[in-house]
Amino acid sequence: MLKTGRGAEAPPFLVMDVISAANARAAALPPGAPGVIRMEVGQPGTGAPRGAAEAAVKALEAGDPMGYTEAFGRASLRERISAHYAERYGAVVPAERIAVTVGASGAFPLAFLAAFDPGDRIAMAAPFYPPYANIVTALGMRPLLLPCDASTRWQPNVAMLEALDPPPDGLILASPCNPAGTMLPPEEFSAIARWCHAAGVRLISDEIYHGLSYGTLREATAATVSESAVVVNSFSKYFSMTGWRIGWLVLPPDLVRPVECLAQNLFISAPHVAQVAAEAAFDCRPELEANIARYRRSRALLLEALPKAGLDRLSPADGAFYLWADIGHLTNDSVAFCARLLAEAGIAATPGVDFDRDRGSRYLRLSYCGPEADMAAAPARIAAFLKR
Amino acid sequence: MLKTGRGAEAPPFLVMDVISAANARAAALPPGAPGVIRMEVGQPGTGAPRGAAEAAVKALEAGDPMGYTEAFGRASLRERISAHYAERYGAVVPAERIAVTVGASGAFPLAFLAAFDPGDRIAMAAPFYPPYANIVTALGMRPLLLPCDASTRWQPNVAMLEALDPPPDGLILASPCNPAGTMLPPEEFSAIARWCHAAGVRLISDEIYHGLSYGTLREATAATVSESAVVVNSFSKYFSMTGWRIGWLVLPPDLVRPVECLAQNLFISAPHVAQVAAEAAFDCRPELEANIARYRRSRALLLEALPKAGLDRLSPADGAFYLWADIGHLTNDSVAFCARLLAEAGIAATPGVDFDRDRGSRYLRLSYCGPEADMAAAPARIAAFLKR
Repeated sequence: MLKTGRGAEAPPFLVMDVISAANARAAALPPGAPGVIRMEVGQPGTGAPRGAAEAAVKALEAGDPMGYTEAFGRASLRERISAHYAERYGAVVPAERIAVTVGASGAFPLAFLAAFDPGDRIAMAAPFYPPYANIVTALGMRPLLLPCDASTRWQPNVAMLEALDPPPDGLILASPCNPAGTMLPPEEFSAIARWCHAAGVRLISDEIYHGLSYGTLREATAATVSESAVVVNSFSKYFSMTGWRIGWLVLPPDLVRPVECLAQNLFISAPHVAQVAAEAAFDCRPELEANIARYRRSRALLLEALPKAGLDRLSPADGAFYLWADIGHLTNDSVAFCARLLAEAGIAATPGVDFDRDRGSRYLRLSYCGPEADMAAAPARIAAFLKR
Repeated sequence: MLKTGRGAEAPPFLVMDVISAANARAAALPPGAPGVIRMEVGQPGTGAPRGAAEAAVKALEAGDPMGYTEAFGRASLRERISAHYAERYGAVVPAERIAVTVGASGAFPLAFLAAFDPGDRIAMAAPFYPPYANIVTALGMRPLLLPCDASTRWQPNVAMLEALDPPPDGLILASPCNPAGTMLPPEEFSAIARWCHAAGVRLISDEIYHGLSYGTLREATAATVSESAVVVNSFSKYFSMTGWRIGWLVLPPDLVRPVECLAQNLFISAPHVAQVAAEAAFDCRPELEANIARYRRSRALLLEALPKAGLDRLSPADGAFYLWADIGHLTNDSVAFCARLLAEAGIAATPGVDFDRDRGSRYLRLSYCGPEADMAAAPARIAAFLKR
């Protein structure tokens, strides 16, 4: 047996294993049996907006050879993303600072490798999106967890950062966040961004859930409040294009060329056909807003019905499409709980340990971006399960 | 100014900069002027085979939501790749050991992180595909260059490996290789693979140019001669699907689960629509073989005409679609030479320094996978340029 690297010890992104288990269970169901309700995965039940898929079809039917693009993506898409910042935030973000990436997943290694060194300490709230810590660790850097709870909407604050001695090398911030679906008030967000810049801490602002918020708080982008921050965004969530693997970075001027060189070597370019579709997705607002109206209805329904079903300790669901449920009164083993929930109630949910290794055994994450009818059917199944 | 990481010093993949320069020159040409002949880029002038593009269109028109797939890809595609090993090599490679990746580019970091640690020494022939060294370096590992020349067809051999003390941690082997377009005789390939396994050296066999060889030597896959090797392959070259960003790994049993965990975290999945197209590409053999017949004709034409034009020191072009040309009698600055070749002759070629930092100032790489008429027109332009 040959040796393996430290990367061989990377923990799984557990939700992917839950997806496999849910797929297996769905495939094994007898005909006519009630299907599995998918509340485990952070992907819309819808596909790309119709106009985006049509743009891809049109380009393919026209015989576009779909070769490599330049490493930072098609110029027209970068311009369109730049215009998006003007439209949505009233912000000037030149196309030269925008890099199209292979999803947000492809954006993180580029940002981390350009900004940090092996051994560097990267702070992040806990609970957190598991690949943050797993990518940081795979690249030889060290995650520095900031335990958060409902008292700060599951988000870090300046006081927590100031208490770190020495200061961390970087901070990953996500508002709305995953798994809690909570947001920072805009003034708190700006205060953190300013503190990072002043303290020489590189802020990585994960904004992939922007566009998905429900009116409790206003979204703020680091692109307008920090000249040193890196913004990560994606077409997977608001634009409903998960499997197309397309996202973007807004880079501070000092990281533009370094990230371009890294992207040339690590990715060559983002998928061409996805770039064509993504550009067209900006012209599909009515369909996208209809998706959000659906999430809004599912959110309201679940916030009303789940407490009655027995899940009454839910995070305030400011944005994204997640509920972070405290199930400490029901179990201290969220992995076993989720396995039973899938086997006995046909509901796939993600155990909290995926997001918080310490406290996650008392939590689970429920995603409500699936079909509305499924979301409406879920509380009764959960109620029946909990009554057993 | 905030600090940057060591990754910020990654050298560019120069060919990407040449592509940008060639794009800029082509855009600036007056109407009616002869176009730029693209011999710089390792991508077919053709797109995906028609049946592959049609499969993508059909799935999109049927409303497939194109969500994330499992991290290792769609089961049907993994099975189809497994069948490909039976058809092409008579080899049993179970689908469980096949991981669909975001191109070969996405495969390398997974293989390197799973097999190696920071500081490890990864041997590779020089000249080499630049991202090998740049990815290895970005991940904190160390490239160990084995200077090769025409005497070994620009490939390493067992004697070179045995001379390394201590032995390296890994070896990247590519046959056919980039930039020289040369292959290892099958018995040499097997000898190297067996030596690696016995010496505890993890072999990474880059087989992305398999299917593109011209009868001088038989292709051998590490999947049949080593139980510890990692095979990297891609749909970009033989299948002519560069910008779709889709490739695969054949993993030894001990790396299957580690790479799956890494892939979940670093990529989530390969692009869904590209997976659909790639599966259909296996049924497009006549079109793909017609592409190869075209490369074969362009290769023969250039091997005949380029020496007469003044480029008479060419590597034996066993496979891939590259010629590695010694231009030491013309210049000792291949970057300046390529810039002039583009500006004055309208031919984009890649300076050798991209592939061999030491000796590459005396070489350039010419790719012949572009349109056949362009390849036929190139020698006269080069002859006129060299006569000035």
